[in-house]
Amino acid sequence: MTVELVCVGTELLLGNIVNTNAAYMAEKCAMLGLSMYYQSVVGDNPERLKELLEMAKKRSDIIILCGGLGPTQDDLTKETATKVTGKTLVEDAQARQEIETFLTKRGRKITENNWKQALVPEGSKVLYNPNGTAPGIIMEDENTQMILLPGPPNELIPMFEEQVYPYLNQLQPEIICSKMVKLCGIGESAAETEILDLIEKQDNPTVAPYAKTGEVHLRLTARAESKEKAFAMIEPLERELYHRFGSKIYTDDESITLEMAVAQLLAKYHLTVTTAESCTGGLLAGRLINVPGISENLKEGYITYSNEAKEKLLGVSHDTLEQHGAVSEETVLEMAKGGAAAANADICVSISGIAGPDGGTKEKPVGLVYMCCYCKGKTYVERNLYTGNRSKVREYAVASALTLLRDAILKEVES
Amino acid sequence: MTVELVCVGTELLLGNIVNTNAAYMAEKCAMLGLSMYYQSVVGDNPERLKELLEMAKKRSDIIILCGGLGPTQDDLTKETATKVTGKTLVEDAQARQEIETFLTKRGRKITENNWKQALVPEGSKVLYNPNGTAPGIIMEDENTQMILLPGPPNELIPMFEEQVYPYLNQLQPEIICSKMVKLCGIGESAAETEILDLIEKQDNPTVAPYAKTGEVHLRLTARAESKEKAFAMIEPLERELYHRFGSKIYTDDESITLEMAVAQLLAKYHLTVTTAESCTGGLLAGRLINVPGISENLKEGYITYSNEAKEKLLGVSHDTLEQHGAVSEETVLEMAKGGAAAANADICVSISGIAGPDGGTKEKPVGLVYMCCYCKGKTYVERNLYTGNRSKVREYAVASALTLLRDAILKEVES
Repeated sequence: MTVELVCVGTELLLGNIVNTNAAYMAEKCAMLGLSMYYQSVVGDNPERLKELLEMAKKRSDIIILCGGLGPTQDDLTKETATKVTGKTLVEDAQARQEIETFLTKRGRKITENNWKQALVPEGSKVLYNPNGTAPGIIMEDENTQMILLPGPPNELIPMFEEQVYPYLNQLQPEIICSKMVKLCGIGESAAETEILDLIEKQDNPTVAPYAKTGEVHLRLTARAESKEKAFAMIEPLERELYHRFGSKIYTDDESITLEMAVAQLLAKYHLTVTTAESCTGGLLAGRLINVPGISENLKEGYITYSNEAKEKLLGVSHDTLEQHGAVSEETVLEMAKGGAAAANADICVSISGIAGPDGGTKEKPVGLVYMCCYCKGKTYVERNLYTGNRSKVREYAVASALTLLRDAILKEVES
Repeated sequence: MTVELVCVGTELLLGNIVNTNAAYMAEKCAMLGLSMYYQSVVGDNPERLKELLEMAKKRSDIIILCGGLGPTQDDLTKETATKVTGKTLVEDAQARQEIETFLTKRGRKITENNWKQALVPEGSKVLYNPNGTAPGIIMEDENTQMILLPGPPNELIPMFEEQVYPYLNQLQPEIICSKMVKLCGIGESAAETEILDLIEKQDNPTVAPYAKTGEVHLRLTARAESKEKAFAMIEPLERELYHRFGSKIYTDDESITLEMAVAQLLAKYHLTVTTAESCTGGLLAGRLINVPGISENLKEGYITYSNEAKEKLLGVSHDTLEQHGAVSEETVLEMAKGGAAAANADICVSISGIAGPDGGTKEKPVGLVYMCCYCKGKTYVERNLYTGNRSKVREYAVASALTLLRDAILKEVES
C-alpha cells in the first residue's frame, strides 16, 4: 500500500519551524511496510490544499494530513478534506465534551470558535486527543483512507502511537512488527559490512541500519498474520545479530538511549561514577544526568577546561601537562585517576581534546580527542580523531565516552 | 515572485533524516520576500521527479531542488532536470578540475563515476562547491529558474549563502535586506505585545518575531533599490526596537548566539566565571564552552548533583540543605558564593531545580528551578517555573541562566 504525507502550515513554508513531524511519520510508515513516494507542505490555503488532495487521492492509498486543525478561521484542513471527499461536517458529542473538559481543567475560557473543533465529517472515525483540543479524524471511502492529525508534536505523536499506528497496521493483509537493536562502538559501514549477507538475502524479516552520532541502530521488521508470529520470526534474526555483534548491542528496546543503558548498568552493579571534562565541558555529565534517578550513581563531576583546573581539581601533575600537553594519553589518564580519587567514586571518565576551530597542529590536529575511563583500579585509554565542526566533535566525543564507560563496566563485571 | 522547494532523497521518505534543509531555505526565501506555496519531497525516482518538475514549472517562477547530485547511479536529479528543460549535459572543465583537486587533497581515490559530477546542462551557471564534489547549477529559461543544490547541509548552506542568495536577490525588482535582532529575558508574546503597533502598520520595512528557547528573534526586512537604501530604512526601525527593549537585545548580528554574546562580555571586561550546576548537570558550562576561546574566562566548573557534593565542592552548609532543601533560594545562593570562592572566579552561576519527571511536590513542583548569579560580591537570585519534559526544563534553565549571567555583568559594568 502507498501512503503520502501532507503537512499544512504557513510556518513551515516560512521556515519558522523544522518539519520533524514528517520524519517521525515517515519512519513509522516505513516500519509498517507502507511505501511513501511523496511528502508535501502547503500553507493554510484551501484552494491549493484541495488541488493537492485531489491529486493525492489519485496516486496514493492512504493520505496523512497534519496541521491546520486549530480553532481559528485560518485552520481549514478539516473543512477542505471534508469537501474533497464530498461529505458534510457534523458535531461529535464526545469531542465537544472532551474539549470542554480539557479547557475547564486548565482554567481556560471556552470561546465560541472552540466548538468548531468538535465538528467532524459524517461517518468518520474520531481520534480523541487527551493532549489538546483538536481531535484527529479518519475518513474512509472505497479507494482512500484520509487521516487528519493535529500539528503540535506533543499531540500528534501520542495520537499516532496509540491510535493511528494500530489502525494502519490492521489495514494491511499482514501484521507488521518491528524491533530496534541499538549498537555502540561501531561505525555504520562496519556494521553494514558485518550483516551484508543478511541484508542481501532478506525478504521477511528484514534488517535496516540507521546511522546516529556514535551509534548504529538496526531495525528488524517482520510481516505475519499475527503479532506473535511476527515477533517469532524476528527472534532468530535478533539472536544472529547478538551472535555477530555481542556486547556492542546495548539494548533491544527502542525507548532506551545509550545514557539510559549506561545508567542501568551503574545502578545494577551499585557503581558510582564521576566525570572530568575538558573540551566537552560538562556535556558528558549533562547527558548522563538527563536520565532520571541517576543521582545515586553520579554525585558530582568536574569541568577542568584550564591546565590549572586539571592540576587543582584532579591532581594532574604539572610535569605531565608540560611534557605531554593537555591533549595526551598521559593527561587523560591522570585526569581519570585523579577525578575518581577526588570524588571517591568507583569510576571516572576523562576527556581532553581539540574541538576547534583553532588550536590544531600537525601532530595534534583539530578533532583529536583523548579519553580515559578509570574503573576500580583499571584504566582504559582511547584516542579518537573526529571530523566536523566544534559542536560535532564534542557530540561525538561524548558518545565515544559513554561507550568507553559502558565497556569498562562490562569488563569489570566479567572479571 | 514565487518559489517552490523540491527535496530529493529516499532517506527523507523513510524518515532516516529530518529535512532541516527545507526550513533553512524557506527562511532565506521568506527573507528575500519570495512567496513559497509548496515544498515537496520525492525519492530518487526519475519518473516521479519529472512529473513533479513539470507541474512546478507551471505554478512557480523559481524551483529550488536539493539532493540527488551525488556520483552514483541512483543520483538522478541533474539528469531529470536537464531532460525536463530540454537541454543536454556537457562537461564543465572547471568543475572537473575542482573535483580532482578536492579528492586529491583529501587523499581519496578518484573513480570513473566522479566525473559524472562534472557534467552540467549546456548554458547553465555552475556554482562551484569548495565543500564537496557536487557543483550546484542554475538553469534559466524564459519562464523559470531552476536551481540544483547538493543535499548535505555543510555543502548546501555555504553555497546558498554565497552564491544562491545574491542570485535570488538580484532577480527581483528591488533588493531585499534583512537584519536579525536577538532578545533574551522576554517571552514571545510579551515581545510581540510590545511591538504590536509596529507590526500592524508595517509595510516596508517589516518586523517578524521568531520564538526560540528562552529567546525571541526579530527579523527586520526592507525592500529598496539598493542595499544601502534598504539598510537605511531598517536603521530607524532598529533604533526604535533598541528604544523599546533596551538591554534585552543582546545582538543585532545574526551569527552571534547568546553564549557568544556572554563570552564577548566576559572577554571585554576581563571577568572569570565558573558554574555550579545541579539539575542541568554541566549543560550550562557545556554551552559556554561551545564558544571557541572562552578558556581565558571559564577555567573550571562544578557539577554538584548530590547534597554531599554541594557541601564538599561548594561549601553549602548542611543546615541550609536540611532546612530549605536543595531546590531553594538559600541553597543556590550558597552554591554561587561557594563556587566563586572555590574557583577564585569573579562570577559564579548556580542552578538547582526539579527537572522531573519525578521528585515534584505541591510546594516544589516539577519544573521549579532556582538559580543565582554571584558577581563580584553581589548576588542575583531567580525562581523559574518551566513546563515541558525533563530535557526541555533543563534547556530552558540553561537559557535563563545565560540571561541572568549577562544581566549581572551589565549591572556590574554600569555600577
